[in-house]
Amino acid sequence: MGLLVVGSLGLDTVATPFDRVENALGGSATYISLAASYFSGPVYLVGVVGEDFPKKYIDLLENHNVDLEGLQIVKGGKTFRWSGKYHYDLNVRDTLLTELNVFEKFNPIIPDKFKKAKFVLLGNIDPELQIRVLDQMEEPHFVVGDTMNYWIEGKKDTLLELLKRVNVLIINDSEARLLAKEPNLIKAWKIIREMGPEILIIKKGEHGALLFTDETVFSAPAYPMEMIYDPTGAGDTFAGGFIGYLHKTQDLSPENMKRAVIYGSAMASFCVEKFSTKGLEEIEYLRVQDRYREFLKLSTFDEKY
Amino acid sequence: MGLLVVGSLGLDTVATPFDRVENALGGSATYISLAASYFSGPVYLVGVVGEDFPKKYIDLLENHNVDLEGLQIVKGGKTFRWSGKYHYDLNVRDTLLTELNVFEKFNPIIPDKFKKAKFVLLGNIDPELQIRVLDQMEEPHFVVGDTMNYWIEGKKDTLLELLKRVNVLIINDSEARLLAKEPNLIKAWKIIREMGPEILIIKKGEHGALLFTDETVFSAPAYPMEMIYDPTGAGDTFAGGFIGYLHKTQDLSPENMKRAVIYGSAMASFCVEKFSTKGLEEIEYLRVQDRYREFLKLSTFDEKY
Repeated sequence: MGLLVVGSLGLDTVATPFDRVENALGGSATYISLAASYFSGPVYLVGVVGEDFPKKYIDLLENHNVDLEGLQIVKGGKTFRWSGKYHYDLNVRDTLLTELNVFEKFNPIIPDKFKKAKFVLLGNIDPELQIRVLDQMEEPHFVVGDTMNYWIEGKKDTLLELLKRVNVLIINDSEARLLAKEPNLIKAWKIIREMGPEILIIKKGEHGALLFTDETVFSAPAYPMEMIYDPTGAGDTFAGGFIGYLHKTQDLSPENMKRAVIYGSAMASFCVEKFSTKGLEEIEYLRVQDRYREFLKLSTFDEKY
Repeated sequence: MGLLVVGSLGLDTVATPFDRVENALGGSATYISLAASYFSGPVYLVGVVGEDFPKKYIDLLENHNVDLEGLQIVKGGKTFRWSGKYHYDLNVRDTLLTELNVFEKFNPIIPDKFKKAKFVLLGNIDPELQIRVLDQMEEPHFVVGDTMNYWIEGKKDTLLELLKRVNVLIINDSEARLLAKEPNLIKAWKIIREMGPEILIIKKGEHGALLFTDETVFSAPAYPMEMIYDPTGAGDTFAGGFIGYLHKTQDLSPENMKRAVIYGSAMASFCVEKFSTKGLEEIEYLRVQDRYREFLKLSTFDEKY
């Protein structure tokens, strides 16, 4: 049984202090699917592109065992485009352009085969659409959702409806503070818990990630990187690695959640090593495991005292 | 043999969103000494106060096995005073007042008994004074140094002289970036390594700490705190716990350094739970060990993949 992923597919134009690419493969569903594909296939992708979406990107996704039956290709339509420029330290970026194009009227339609999926990842799109996806699923067992400040500020009520149906919410620290209206992240978790999600993952970029469950708090380190070429997609890649590992192991225990957070972090570290999706296109699974072991070394200390 | 600590002693007036204290015990040497005292005594303190320094603070330090033979009490002098106000989220503070007073003409004189100390912690003071301390020591074996942006910007050459004689430098992330002139912390470590210190610890506040040695990078989590009453002294407390544990165990292996970073973090978490030094005044050692175990739980995941 596949893992359902819904989100955006786009053509990105990205400038960093090191380089610049035009019309590279981008979008949340793209990064999520590629990252998840290393753990578990098939990935059932639901999204929309225009007729200008290059065939090579279709091939790339299909070669990663991504089932595109749920990909709408709009005749005469233009694919979603995003353009951004990163500052010197890569922590800050300016969005130069966002063209929704076919994404503006996107209505996710889940193919019958996909409706049976138990694991669902709702990438960062309008919470109304995220709800529409869940409404079509037969019996989703484990739902992971992403969102952003734009929806927290602009569609809070709809988002709150969604959160009641989400098992894991993955957001960054400023989004968590904004959603909970609380600067302290531990308190923010308790407030968000009341909104629905049993599990909250707070992404902190270069500072790693926090996993909150009712029983545990887990602090995952970030992989120490000397060179970050392009941070685009790191958060989506994290989410894809996280759910991919859980889907593969079919184990939702807190201990396995921790491992999944580390696998998500490992995938994100591969993502930012190259431009666009390049870092995710050809990874041997042994390298993923090696990186997992490096995370262990990075954070292990012992009980002697 | 004692552990030598040099730094400031002061009277702090601090306002946070929760409360306000006036003329509370403060200063880097104070926090360092109290934190270290839970691991290893005596602490040989070198510093200066005025005649207005309250007797109760002298007693407090002495009750923590802090040897005050090196404490200069200037007749008719006024103790160093600092006043600050923390913002809503406690990550930002404004300094309202700094009165150097007796600290302005401080010339550290090391009593003979102290000169044999092998472990030295140079709190954040003028690097010229830090060098003057080292010059008086007979055979310092393990020197830990702290500094700040003020000295990095204003006395860089003197600071660079000092760094050649320091084994461990403990600074925060913005200081590391400033000192190395490099935004990436992994690269910054390599640049700072060339300046002298074999070990660099980067404090990242609510994001934990990074320990760099030639062999390893270690990422320590921060203790998840729902309530931070007063962040003043957290960094000095971290340094005090770190060197106190190393002094106690007399083990400078990389594995033990990691433990020391966790003990430093544990002590810092006690520090910020109460105002001023209150959180460090009465801790049972069992509670310190408990907190160490909580750090273990917080960051442990296993090798299964």
